[in-house]
Amino acid sequence: MKKQIAVIGLGRFGISLIEELTLLGYDVLAIDNDSEKVNSVVNTCTHAVQADAMDEQALKSLGIRNFDVVVVSIGEDVQANILAAIILQELGVKKVVAKAKNNLHGKVLEKIGATVIFPERDMGKRLARMLVSQNIMDHIELSPHYSIMEFRAPEIYIGKTLDQLGVRKMMGITILAIKRGEQIIVAPRAAQVIDRGDVLVAVGKNADLKKLYDME
Amino acid sequence: MKKQIAVIGLGRFGISLIEELTLLGYDVLAIDNDSEKVNSVVNTCTHAVQADAMDEQALKSLGIRNFDVVVVSIGEDVQANILAAIILQELGVKKVVAKAKNNLHGKVLEKIGATVIFPERDMGKRLARMLVSQNIMDHIELSPHYSIMEFRAPEIYIGKTLDQLGVRKMMGITILAIKRGEQIIVAPRAAQVIDRGDVLVAVGKNADLKKLYDME
Ligand SMILES: Nc1ncnc2c1ncn2[C@@H]1O[C@H](COP(=O)(O)OP(=O)(O)OP(=O)(O)O)[C@@H](O)[C@H]1O
Ligand SMILES: Nc1ncnc2c1ncn2[C@@H]1O[C@H](COP(=O)(O)OP(=O)(O)OP(=O)(O)O)[C@@H](O)[C@H]1O
Ligand SMILES: [Ca+2]
Ligand SMILES: [Ca+2]
Ligand SMILES: [Ca+2]
Ligand SMILES: [Ca+2]
Repeated sequence: MKKQIAVIGLGRFGISLIEELTLLGYDVLAIDNDSEKVNSVVNTCTHAVQADAMDEQALKSLGIRNFDVVVVSIGEDVQANILAAIILQELGVKKVVAKAKNNLHGKVLEKIGATVIFPERDMGKRLARMLVSQNIMDHIELSPHYSIMEFRAPEIYIGKTLDQLGVRKMMGITILAIKRGEQIIVAPRAAQVIDRGDVLVAVGKNADLKKLYDME
Repeated sequence: MKKQIAVIGLGRFGISLIEELTLLGYDVLAIDNDSEKVNSVVNTCTHAVQADAMDEQALKSLGIRNFDVVVVSIGEDVQANILAAIILQELGVKKVVAKAKNNLHGKVLEKIGATVIFPERDMGKRLARMLVSQNIMDHIELSPHYSIMEFRAPEIYIGKTLDQLGVRKMMGITILAIKRGEQIIVAPRAAQVIDRGDVLVAVGKNADLKKLYDME
């Protein structure tokens, strides 16, 4: 059976979460103590209810204990956020995910047993890396020293083959894929020529990758 | 020369951005009209100044026109956010990045010529996908149908080799790497055994990948 998911706190993060879950085919219960916020999601999600997350009886009567995941996306009001997480844990919700404002808040939530998320912090870090190299589009950290990086091919690569660039031999990097518009070339061969607009997905040591995507 | 970057609006997102840029070796100029916010980053970043982003003269006298990138991370006050973006564009800042509250706000910022970001929305979507599959940790979209996925090895994989799982032959998926604690096995061979706690990084069709990480 599909997971039962509830989201408490309809800020920008909470609403986006609900929209995406709805798109993925899930029925989501949306809760906020502000009736305007509740009304604003009535068309997006199946169930939207006005309730105070600090009111144990209210949450109980919504049957919240039967949910598989409850996300607390209350932001500014740290007290409400923490109290809600405690109540949800005590009611026996299987997985409580809570958005933290800062480190200290995160530690308290962890003690309570919640899964802690830092959306603003994570996106701040992400943007920093993207600004520092115009070319980087996305990345997955494999270890502190290895990553998968997605980046626009630097101008000077255009018309050259992977072999000519010495990507493998000189840099110890493996190009996993080339994105070319709608097309995708998985595991390109050494003779593959790079076109203008190509996006490369490569795995290797961070230091080596940096040489590759920062080349101008 | 290193890019000159300024950040206006020291919310959670702005502060995280500054911290990461500082970590990456950049000197960042931090601006907020709230002196408490300015004081809170004094130890993190090189230059922190109290100024109103709607005050053109103040921004001018900070030499903001010479910056390569200015990020407007003012959140709630949409008017201040838009005005700041307009002023920065008019002063000739090369790249203005602005955080949008919603779609309409985003469209206005685009018209002004700013690079628009939606941190809360992006992370909301991201969490939705992670909740729907417990195992997924991160992903890179290669095309609408192909992705790189990072996911915890489902329980039933433990002790089996990649060959036994038929990952390649049956599913057309390539395992790019296995993360095992601090260790990383790049391009594992068919005889590689999967351990408890392994995290797999795989490339393939979304539909095939889903079969792989959702297996329980
Ligand atoms: N006690 C409470 N019970 C239910 N909802 C609450 C409670 N306190 C606050 N909220 C709601 O939580 C929502 C999100 O809170 P807030 O705007 O402070 O977070 P935020 O971190 O700024 O959000 P975002 O960054 O996602 O836009 C608001 O819609 C607010 O009405
Ligand atoms: N006119 C202005 N000039 C300079 N700074 C401003 C101005 N208006 C607001 N700010 C600052 O912008 C910062 C971020 O604003 P706000 O808290 O509304 O955004 P937010 O989206 O909730 O932030 P986050 O989600 O990143 O925590 C605040 O520290 C605020 O003082
Ligand atoms: Ca808010
Ligand atoms: Ca926010
Ligand atoms: Ca705020
Ligand atoms: Ca990613």
